[in-house]
Amino acid sequence: MPRKDSKSIATDRRKEVLEALKQLGQKTYDEVDSGKFPEFAFPSRSVSNIVYDPKLKQYVLDKINVKRSAGNIKHIRPFTQLLWLAYFADKLVSEGKTSTLRDAYYSSQADAMEFVDQAESDEIITDLETVLARAREEFKIYPEERSAIFGDLTIEYTVPRYVGRRLNLNSHPDGYLIGPSLSTAEFVETSAEMVIAVEKGGIFTRFVEEEVEKKYKAILVDTSGQAPRSTRYMLKRLNKELNLPVYIMTDGDVYGEHIAMVVISGSANAAHLRDLTVPTAKWVGVWASDIVKYKLPTDPMTEADVKRAQELKKDPRYHGGVWQRELDIFLKIKRKSELEAFSKYGLTFIVTNYLKEKMEEAKSL
Amino acid sequence: MPRKDSKSIATDRRKEVLEALKQLGQKTYDEVDSGKFPEFAFPSRSVSNIVYDPKLKQYVLDKINVKRSAGNIKHIRPFTQLLWLAYFADKLVSEGKTSTLRDAYYSSQADAMEFVDQAESDEIITDLETVLARAREEFKIYPEERSAIFGDLTIEYTVPRYVGRRLNLNSHPDGYLIGPSLSTAEFVETSAEMVIAVEKGGIFTRFVEEEVEKKYKAILVDTSGQAPRSTRYMLKRLNKELNLPVYIMTDGDVYGEHIAMVVISGSANAAHLRDLTVPTAKWVGVWASDIVKYKLPTDPMTEADVKRAQELKKDPRYHGGVWQRELDIFLKIKRKSELEAFSKYGLTFIVTNYLKEKMEEAKSL
Repeated sequence: MPRKDSKSIATDRRKEVLEALKQLGQKTYDEVDSGKFPEFAFPSRSVSNIVYDPKLKQYVLDKINVKRSAGNIKHIRPFTQLLWLAYFADKLVSEGKTSTLRDAYYSSQADAMEFVDQAESDEIITDLETVLARAREEFKIYPEERSAIFGDLTIEYTVPRYVGRRLNLNSHPDGYLIGPSLSTAEFVETSAEMVIAVEKGGIFTRFVEEEVEKKYKAILVDTSGQAPRSTRYMLKRLNKELNLPVYIMTDGDVYGEHIAMVVISGSANAAHLRDLTVPTAKWVGVWASDIVKYKLPTDPMTEADVKRAQELKKDPRYHGGVWQRELDIFLKIKRKSELEAFSKYGLTFIVTNYLKEKMEEAKSL
Repeated sequence: MPRKDSKSIATDRRKEVLEALKQLGQKTYDEVDSGKFPEFAFPSRSVSNIVYDPKLKQYVLDKINVKRSAGNIKHIRPFTQLLWLAYFADKLVSEGKTSTLRDAYYSSQADAMEFVDQAESDEIITDLETVLARAREEFKIYPEERSAIFGDLTIEYTVPRYVGRRLNLNSHPDGYLIGPSLSTAEFVETSAEMVIAVEKGGIFTRFVEEEVEKKYKAILVDTSGQAPRSTRYMLKRLNKELNLPVYIMTDGDVYGEHIAMVVISGSANAAHLRDLTVPTAKWVGVWASDIVKYKLPTDPMTEADVKRAQELKKDPRYHGGVWQRELDIFLKIKRKSELEAFSKYGLTFIVTNYLKEKMEEAKSL
């Protein structure tokens, strides 16, 4: 890996975002100066404008634009809110601070900017993401949820207090939280040859105990259920910057299948963003067919499970391949199972047998 | 702090638990050998046997005992389950492996041991805790939930792969997960003079950004809502082994107040255990009176909130002091607020003003 200076990378990134925000403000000033009502235009995120892009393997926004103009009395509120948010984002980035979505909502009150509730401010934050075509994490607004990572990867921080400091992510076997500092750290060095993401802390711990990171030269990620955006962003970076293949292992139910799908193809909610998907990632289990093959203990699928499976069958992301096949088997057997169910064969079976067989199988996926 | 050899500590602890388990098995063999039906007797955890101990400041079990005898046909099932679980625990401890509650449930099927569902196996795990008077973590059964820690504390691992290795918990600013490895690590060295626990990841990150761990010489803990048992155990250890006072900061609502209370006095569910409470810990906010004093943005309390406050008023743990007073104010103002609400005064206000004032106030609590 070519070595870079993390201080200058951090500075460059900050400059880029600040420049984008400055242009937004400059445009507003220019329009006012030339006697025009200032406005923002950006792609609509309404359902009718969300289309599936089979090449990118993700949802994207189509051609319909929306406008927020200071000249339209109905637009004045969202126009002003967006402008305020850009100001708030500029402050965060300039001062090297982070904020949660919740913090952003309450911060508006400091400037007597009105949001009815957090849902409204979240919506405007997504507007700003769309206008800038950048994830809110780039302008330092993070979600609450945190997931974890473990493995032989040396990182170098770019956040203010820690810039230039290094850490190897194999020194704490319970795992490192993936928060703002880790999300923005540079990758310095790794011996890893793949990434294995699992949806549960207990399985993550099991994998560490069984030395999966050594046996498979893997970086382990715990997505803690549906992977938070910062985790999907991290998986994307591991895949793109380090050229590591990504494998995802979930519970054997339709929600598990969808956790894998969102890592691979993203969500409709994030159709306005790139860099949150890993199109080449592979879902290696627990498949419906594994439930049958390994005679796993199961629970019956609920009506809601069945309905969800039927919905997903029509979802364009689920077109063909393992996705349709496994949904069909779920609907046929009407049973679901969990990663822990392999404990029926002893605690280590999931690593010594199941993971091994699935990683063999994955080569031909 | 006196230095110990973490390898021998780990060995000693393991030996102790194995000895307790061995005695349990030996007793069963002895009873069979002498022609008696083997049995276990332990304190009942039924509501009528849970009493509040004002000295310990926590719920404890009273004098009623229950028996599980192989000579009673109704007892054979729970007797056998308990015996199997002791066998499973022995295996975990001997082999240096950990398990989740869920894993334990599925593992039973390896030996054709029957549990209707996980609720039943969880119940038997609690029985074994009561019999041994040891938390399940000591026999290596951990919950799924993980919270986080950050600060100047050097630890030394006692888990197999990492035994003897050291780590300073201030090297990753997003925080270290508190899992099985950290829970069982030895504390080697710290410059900290207190522990500050907060209930939210976002506030934890804010505190790190604002260098609270330096300004207050504090170890920061993110409880992620209601503190998981491993986190309460960690807080207890920081308090007991390092003599550090513990301060808890929660949202300004009855659930926040109760999060603090459970750290201090534990839960009725854990009345059969010690070492999970920090009786001297202080709840420093957000109080109902702070909501008024700081003119925080609020939401109305729901009917459920009001009912909960009325329940807690009768709870013996809430007798007197700040506990009753703040419940009364909640019930009077019928409003609740959150830690993030301080962002109304700017992102750093919570540290530069609120925390500062509360820590002054805490001296006289």
